[in-house]
Amino acid sequence: THPHVISNHYLTQKFFFYFEVSLNEISLWPIPQKFQSSAVAFKLSPASFQIVHAKQSSAGPSCSILENAFRLETFSQLVYEDDYGANNINKTEISDFPRFAHRGILLDSSRHFLPLKVILANLEAMAMNKFNVFHWHIVDDQSFPYMSRTFPDLSQKGAYHPFTHVYTPSDVKMVIEFARMRGIRVIPEFDTPGHTRSWGNGKLDLLTPCYSGSSPSGTFGPVNPILNSSYDFMTEFFKEISTVFPDAYIHLGGDEVDFSCWKSNPDIQKFMVQQGFGTDYSKLESFYVQRLLDIVAATKKGYMVWQEVFDNGVKLKADTQIHVWKERPQYQDEMAKVTAAGFNTLLSTPWYLNRISYGQDWVNIYKADPQNFTGTDAQKKLVIGGEACLWGEYVDATNLTPRLWPRASAVAERLWSDKSVTDVGNAYNRLAQHRCRMVKRGIPAEPLFVGHCRQEYMGL
Amino acid sequence: THPHVISNHYLTQKFFFYFEVSLNEISLWPIPQKFQSSAVAFKLSPASFQIVHAKQSSAGPSCSILENAFRLETFSQLVYEDDYGANNINKTEISDFPRFAHRGILLDSSRHFLPLKVILANLEAMAMNKFNVFHWHIVDDQSFPYMSRTFPDLSQKGAYHPFTHVYTPSDVKMVIEFARMRGIRVIPEFDTPGHTRSWGNGKLDLLTPCYSGSSPSGTFGPVNPILNSSYDFMTEFFKEISTVFPDAYIHLGGDEVDFSCWKSNPDIQKFMVQQGFGTDYSKLESFYVQRLLDIVAATKKGYMVWQEVFDNGVKLKADTQIHVWKERPQYQDEMAKVTAAGFNTLLSTPWYLNRISYGQDWVNIYKADPQNFTGTDAQKKLVIGGEACLWGEYVDATNLTPRLWPRASAVAERLWSDKSVTDVGNAYNRLAQHRCRMVKRGIPAEPLFVGHCRQEYMGL
Repeated sequence: THPHVISNHYLTQKFFFYFEVSLNEISLWPIPQKFQSSAVAFKLSPASFQIVHAKQSSAGPSCSILENAFRLETFSQLVYEDDYGANNINKTEISDFPRFAHRGILLDSSRHFLPLKVILANLEAMAMNKFNVFHWHIVDDQSFPYMSRTFPDLSQKGAYHPFTHVYTPSDVKMVIEFARMRGIRVIPEFDTPGHTRSWGNGKLDLLTPCYSGSSPSGTFGPVNPILNSSYDFMTEFFKEISTVFPDAYIHLGGDEVDFSCWKSNPDIQKFMVQQGFGTDYSKLESFYVQRLLDIVAATKKGYMVWQEVFDNGVKLKADTQIHVWKERPQYQDEMAKVTAAGFNTLLSTPWYLNRISYGQDWVNIYKADPQNFTGTDAQKKLVIGGEACLWGEYVDATNLTPRLWPRASAVAERLWSDKSVTDVGNAYNRLAQHRCRMVKRGIPAEPLFVGHCRQEYMGL
Repeated sequence: THPHVISNHYLTQKFFFYFEVSLNEISLWPIPQKFQSSAVAFKLSPASFQIVHAKQSSAGPSCSILENAFRLETFSQLVYEDDYGANNINKTEISDFPRFAHRGILLDSSRHFLPLKVILANLEAMAMNKFNVFHWHIVDDQSFPYMSRTFPDLSQKGAYHPFTHVYTPSDVKMVIEFARMRGIRVIPEFDTPGHTRSWGNGKLDLLTPCYSGSSPSGTFGPVNPILNSSYDFMTEFFKEISTVFPDAYIHLGGDEVDFSCWKSNPDIQKFMVQQGFGTDYSKLESFYVQRLLDIVAATKKGYMVWQEVFDNGVKLKADTQIHVWKERPQYQDEMAKVTAAGFNTLLSTPWYLNRISYGQDWVNIYKADPQNFTGTDAQKKLVIGGEACLWGEYVDATNLTPRLWPRASAVAERLWSDKSVTDVGNAYNRLAQHRCRMVKRGIPAEPLFVGHCRQEYMGL
C-alpha cells in the first residue's frame, strides 16, 4: 500500500491540497491551515510512490507548475525517517491555503553583488518556506549589476565589474524561470529618483548636478526631474524592464529622496518658481514620481512603491501597492492610513532581517502581525502580506544565507498560517526541525540555539 | 633579480624578520612593528623565487616550523597583482615581533559540534592573522565530543552522536599538528566543576545529585566535591589530557559555578559543617579547585583559569594565567587586581565575538586595549595578551566562519601591532583588503561594508 494525494482544487490565489497520507514526528513549517494526522503509518517505496490528480480537480497534467509542485513542500515535510532509516509517513488530511497572497523576500544585489548561485539557493529556501515573491532590489547607489540591452553602459560603467559582477539577460531569465517553477514571482525594483548614484556612471545628464555656491561641485544628486531627457530615458528603460520581467508588478522605489542637491542647483530653483512649488521640494519629488508612474502605467504594469510616495500625496492608480517600511510613524498607524485611503499594502518594518542582535531574535520577528492595527474589516482585507528584507550593506555570498535562514522562516509562517498560530514554544520545536531539514537540503541555515541535526556530518 | 629574505633571528617568544623585498598597494594586517617600503618594484617569478636563511641567523633548515613559516604571512601580503595580472612586490624592510605573546581564539565545540574541516579552516585563518593560540573549549554542559581513551563512555554517552559528533584521538592529533605547522599552540579547556552536565552521562556519580526537599530530584549539579572518587577520576582523566595535548598549559575553567544544587544536597551540607565552611559555598568551590590544581600540577602542566578562581581566593601557582572575561566588575579593575597580585593575565571581556550587533562592530573590538588599566609598568608586563571568544550557542558550521572573520582580525592587530596603531580609518582600508585576501584563500570572511573584492567570482 502506498499513499496518494487524492484531491486538489485550483482556486484564484489559493491552492487546496488534501492528503490521505501519513505522519508521526510532525514538524510542519509553516503550519497548514488545517490538518489532522493519525497513527496509521505507511512506508514509502521510491519505486511505486506517485502523486496523482484528484478526480474533481480542474487542473490537469498540462499545468507545469502544479506538476512541479508535486514535489510538494508540505508533503515532503510529512516524511520522517524511522530508527531503521526507512521513510515513513502517517495518514494525514491537510487542507491548506495561505493567509496572505504576498509573501516575499527582498534581496539587495547592489550594496554587494550576489552571484547567481546564491540567488538560486535562496529561491530554493523560499520555496521550502512557501514564500512566493522574490523582490529583487537589483540596483542602487553602490552598483548597477543589471545588464540592460537598451543601455549597456549602465552596467558596463555602473557595476562593480563589467563582466564578473553583472546579471546578463540569460542570468535574469534563469532566475525568473527557476523561481517560476517553484511558484515564486520575481518583482524587480528599480528605485528612483533617489538611490541612483550608480546610474549616473553609464547615463550622462540623468542625475542632478549639485552646486557648491554658484558652481557645480562635481557631485550628483537624485534623477534630474526638470529635463525631458530624464523622462525619455525612463520611458525607454521601463519599456525594456516591462518585457524582461513577466510579473504584472514592478517596484518603483521612491524612498529616501535627499533634497539638499536639488536645493543647491540654480536651474532646479528656477523650475520650482515656475511651477509654483515654493520651497516644498516634496512637490518636486511628486512631480517626478507622477510622470514616472504614468510612463510605467503605459507599459500595462502595476506598480509597488515605498510608503513615502503615498505619504507625499502622489496621485496613485487604485491598484498601487504601498510598501510600509519606516519605523516612525509606527507602522500600525501607517497601515491604518494607507488602507483607510483604500490602497493595498504590505509590511516590512518589523522584518528588516539585515538588522541583527544577539540571541533568539526570530521570536520578535515571529510575533509581528501585518493586520495588527486599528481598522475595519475592509481595511484589514487590503493587507496583501509582507516581505522580509535583507539589505546588503553587510551581507554578501559569504554570510547571506545563514543570516537570512531560518529567521525569514518566522516571517513565512506569519504570512502563511492562521492568525491564531502564535505559540512560540511550539514554533521553536517545529522551526528547529525545519531548520535541520534546510541544512539537509544543502541550505546553510544557522542554528536557533544549542543542539544538533540528526542528519548533519553523516559523511564525515 | 628576485627578492631574498636576508635575515632572521630566533629569540625567545619573538621572531624578527627582515625583508629586502617589494611593495606598492600595501595592506598589511596586522601591521608590523616597523616597516619601510620603497617605490622600487620587483616582479615575482614562480620558477626562481625563494626565501633563504640569513647568514647571521641562528636557526637553520632543520627548523620545520620556520621552514614552513617561509610561506610567511607578512611576505604574502606584500605581493599585489598589477593591472596585467603579474605578481609584484616592492622593496621593503620589515622588522617585526608581536606586542603580546598570547594571541588566541576560543572556539566552543560543545554547544554545537564543529566538524574537523571548520576547525582546520579557522586555524588557517588564524595563521593569516598571526594568532598563535587555539583555545579549544572542547566540552561543556551540552555535549562531550572529546573521545577519551581512558573513559570512552564520556563521548559514547555524552556526545550529540557517538560516531559523527566526536573528536577521535586521530582527529585531535590532526588539529594539533595542523596548528603546530602554523605556529599555533592548542590549549584544551576541560571546564570543571560547573559546565559539566554532559560528563555525567558517561561517568556515574561524578556530578552532585540535586535534592528537592528530602529526596533527590533526578537532576545533577556541579562535580561532586566531597567524594574521593571524583578526584580519582580527575587524576586519571588529566593524566590522559596532559599526554594528548603537548602544550605546556591546560585551561581548567572554573567559571560560573551554580551553588543551588550543592545547597540542596544533605551530604554536601554535612560536609560543609565538618570543614567549617559555614554557608560560604565559594569555600567549597575553592576546596575542589585547590585539589584539582594539585592534580594537574602533578602532570607538570601549567594552568589557565577563568577569573572566578582568582576572585574566590584559591591558592594558585605563580605561573597561573588568569583569564579575565566578566563585564562586572569592569575588566580594567580586574586586570589591575590580578596583576597587583603578581599573576599573568589575559583579556577576553571586550572580545566576546559571539555577541553581535548591527553595523561595524569591529571598531569597538579594535579600540579595546588589554593594557588600558591603572597600574605600574611591572603590572602591565604581566599582561600576556588576550583571546577572541566565539561561544557556540548560536553558531555551528553554517555560520561560524563569516561571524568570526574579519571581526577577530581586529583583535589580531590589537595583540600584534604597536600600541600606537589606533587609526580606525587607516585600519578600515587595510582590513577591507585583508578580508578580500581571506576570501581569495577560501575563507568566507564577511564584508565590513559595501563594496566588492577584486578577485571574487572570477570563475563565474
